[in-house]
Amino acid sequence: MIPKSTNIRRARQEISLHKRWEKNSHASGVIWFTGLSGSGKSTLASELEQLLFDRNKQVVSLDGDDLRYGLCADLGFLPEDRAENIRRVGEVASLFSASGAIVLTAFISPYRADRLKARKAAVGNFHEIYLSADLNTCIDRDPKGLYAKAQRGEISHFTGISAPYEAPESPELTLDTGLLDVKKSLKILDEYVEKAFSL
Amino acid sequence: MIPKSTNIRRARQEISLHKRWEKNSHASGVIWFTGLSGSGKSTLASELEQLLFDRNKQVVSLDGDDLRYGLCADLGFLPEDRAENIRRVGEVASLFSASGAIVLTAFISPYRADRLKARKAAVGNFHEIYLSADLNTCIDRDPKGLYAKAQRGEISHFTGISAPYEAPESPELTLDTGLLDVKKSLKILDEYVEKAFSL
Repeated sequence: MIPKSTNIRRARQEISLHKRWEKNSHASGVIWFTGLSGSGKSTLASELEQLLFDRNKQVVSLDGDDLRYGLCADLGFLPEDRAENIRRVGEVASLFSASGAIVLTAFISPYRADRLKARKAAVGNFHEIYLSADLNTCIDRDPKGLYAKAQRGEISHFTGISAPYEAPESPELTLDTGLLDVKKSLKILDEYVEKAFSL
Repeated sequence: MIPKSTNIRRARQEISLHKRWEKNSHASGVIWFTGLSGSGKSTLASELEQLLFDRNKQVVSLDGDDLRYGLCADLGFLPEDRAENIRRVGEVASLFSASGAIVLTAFISPYRADRLKARKAAVGNFHEIYLSADLNTCIDRDPKGLYAKAQRGEISHFTGISAPYEAPESPELTLDTGLLDVKKSLKILDEYVEKAFSL
């Protein structure tokens, strides 16, 4: 996005990203989970966050529901609101990454264009992790009872039911969370992240 | 702000703030600089960030100009845009504070109501630091040449010239940066922050 404001200038970055990485003994970047509601994004982000925290990494997770109480409280679920929601998440993830942290984001983020924007905004590494549990599996799980509501027409624009999900074309990692349980998924993620964020 | 979205729920906070503080060996929170353009907000935030980083604190600074290239690129300088800009900064600062960091924000943030919102959004400590250099001093300095432009009418809604600045009524700390030089201001800040963020 080209800034609407004029009369602005970028402040000098006093502390280099490299220095922040050295201090934390790991690289920073964004681990962007994407997948249908019920595919396990929040669960895996939360488990991975705990695991990395226990290994003394600087780690933070951004969750869709959490942000909608704060930064994105002015947004709903219409396509343009979703796009703006994901744009902001991408920019916030970029700020965290620039601060030296590993950021885990758990958002359906159904549109390719929006995920691409987040990738472009990112400072440091960006890793798109596609949780590919299929729709029927997610409908069966329905951990929040949202699919049932959507099928009764009580929620509009619900991804998979009344709004599209555009699967990633070349994600850094795909986990079929319809087949893999949390423990197995976490093991694969752990190995992936250790490689991706080591100095 | 009451969330526009329904069908959301807060995710469980897996890692407590207390655990994050223990890990970093310091508390987290927001150090909110406010004052006129030219009062020294970015300079002091930048110097303080370096000083805290060198002491092994987890620290990050958010600068007006930086954010307007990213998260707030859709906003201008009209009163409603400024309010939304500061709302987002407050929410992002809150996210950083919740992650265990000390967040320094350097925004004119001219309206009391907006600063109060940021205070309410904050997780952990919130410290409003008023840089009280007076208007004439800031006009004389005019580090970005913006006052000259505003006085020629080339910038509208410029704080101090064509838009109001509402001074804090009970800031946690006031520094008259019209009288104190950077070194002296920094010394006072340093002592203040060491107390405010120790465990």
